[in-house]
Amino acid sequence: MTQVVAVMGRGVVAPGVGLVTADDLGLTRGDGYYDAVRVVVTDGHTRVDHLDRHLQRFARAADALELPPLVEADWRALIAEAVAAWDTPGEAVLKLVRTRGPEHSSSEPTQFLTITTAADATQARQGVRAVTLSRGTASDAFRDAPWLLGGVKNLSHAVHLAAKREAVRRGVGEAIFISTDGFLLEGPSAGLIIAAEDQLWTTPTRGTGILPSVTVEVIMDAARAEGVGASEALFRPEDLADADGLWLASSIRGIMPVRELDGVALPYSADLTRHLAATAGF
Amino acid sequence: MTQVVAVMGRGVVAPGVGLVTADDLGLTRGDGYYDAVRVVVTDGHTRVDHLDRHLQRFARAADALELPPLVEADWRALIAEAVAAWDTPGEAVLKLVRTRGPEHSSSEPTQFLTITTAADATQARQGVRAVTLSRGTASDAFRDAPWLLGGVKNLSHAVHLAAKREAVRRGVGEAIFISTDGFLLEGPSAGLIIAAEDQLWTTPTRGTGILPSVTVEVIMDAARAEGVGASEALFRPEDLADADGLWLASSIRGIMPVRELDGVALPYSADLTRHLAATAGF
Repeated sequence: MTQVVAVMGRGVVAPGVGLVTADDLGLTRGDGYYDAVRVVVTDGHTRVDHLDRHLQRFARAADALELPPLVEADWRALIAEAVAAWDTPGEAVLKLVRTRGPEHSSSEPTQFLTITTAADATQARQGVRAVTLSRGTASDAFRDAPWLLGGVKNLSHAVHLAAKREAVRRGVGEAIFISTDGFLLEGPSAGLIIAAEDQLWTTPTRGTGILPSVTVEVIMDAARAEGVGASEALFRPEDLADADGLWLASSIRGIMPVRELDGVALPYSADLTRHLAATAGF
Repeated sequence: MTQVVAVMGRGVVAPGVGLVTADDLGLTRGDGYYDAVRVVVTDGHTRVDHLDRHLQRFARAADALELPPLVEADWRALIAEAVAAWDTPGEAVLKLVRTRGPEHSSSEPTQFLTITTAADATQARQGVRAVTLSRGTASDAFRDAPWLLGGVKNLSHAVHLAAKREAVRRGVGEAIFISTDGFLLEGPSAGLIIAAEDQLWTTPTRGTGILPSVTVEVIMDAARAEGVGASEALFRPEDLADADGLWLASSIRGIMPVRELDGVALPYSADLTRHLAATAGF
């Protein structure tokens, strides 16, 4: 596994070295945030997908966590240096990380990035099976409760990973969180797109706590530009029988049609899947 | 700020050095768990409070996160080495940490500990003011949902810290999480003890997602040994008017009487507070 690691103020460093102190609040408390961007190397040319949108989301998260604003020019320079050092053909993950920094020795955020080869998502892009797992909260639980950090891609993702392990335990590849009032919310690391009534839908962010997905935004904006409706709504699993399809959308893994949810086959269109994937750059 | 840092397999290392790689899952995902134990140095004598109970809780968390079981003898040896290297008079925090390890280069957990001087809790032990903050979940949300990691002291504590910042923003020192069905649950880093009807109460763990508090357990066991009732129950804020007191209990900060909740003065007993604190070793 090749890996590029770059640290704010230091540039590219050797991967595998100890980077973060034992008392860094990102490590001891998950107190920080990140973003993940797809990098594609083809025929010696390197592409970084939707970087502006990712940097916008990355900047917004600082406010929610009351961390100092990021210096965008510094991040763009660090990213450029790291991307220049990456030449592995195929798809990779550029991960940007900011933490609150060492608890006892600094008031400066810890800031670094990594580039690593992405896991092969070819099969998932053909179709996935998913189970719904309770997120424990109602669909409006995050309204007026900013301390719950809804919509913030923070480092505290232990529950997201535990949900993925639970999905595997149940014999499928993906989990979709469901609210206690019965609405589909999002995957642990993917947004939702639904095609129904001749338009596209996604689940609303804000009060639901759902993370605004860059890939979903790209697709919804493109649909509107094509004159196709693109709106937000909450769906129950049973609504999907009348829909034209459900997709998980990830910046890294792409557009994954959900062919089966909780053991029930879902409507599926290969044409629509190809169109959505192409729209998002996959 | 003096600090002792010790790493499993290496022993005591210099504090402030980079310990964890950029892709350690504890850092990038909050995927790991910890425990915090009080260390007290008085007249050259060092005491580690309730270590057996803390190690039991630390061991249990490995199962919930599907991490390899910890080797207790190795942890006891590492703790002994670190404690021997710590001689700062007063109260300190021994923090034990295990993460799932580097994502790309190892399948071994990252394991280390730190000892640092504890923040002065003298004033909080005299009394605190608190606000209730929604945790977004009902009091039974964690029942049959192990992927929500209820009761596991995992590293994903960004929401706990955000709740503490919200409490400060509201002009008080402490937050107490409340369920959507109106029950007091726990503090972001403290359990609850209520005195009412001539006995002690604490909030139930398991389905509530509340972390089993070592300090609460010590006090409840001592009460039973003294012939005083000690049971679990859920309380609403309005129930406290008829109680004899509410306390936040922390392994590090001790027994903190809540003198005011959401702007309403609560019943308070200096004698009971002294007794509970002495029972827990404060």
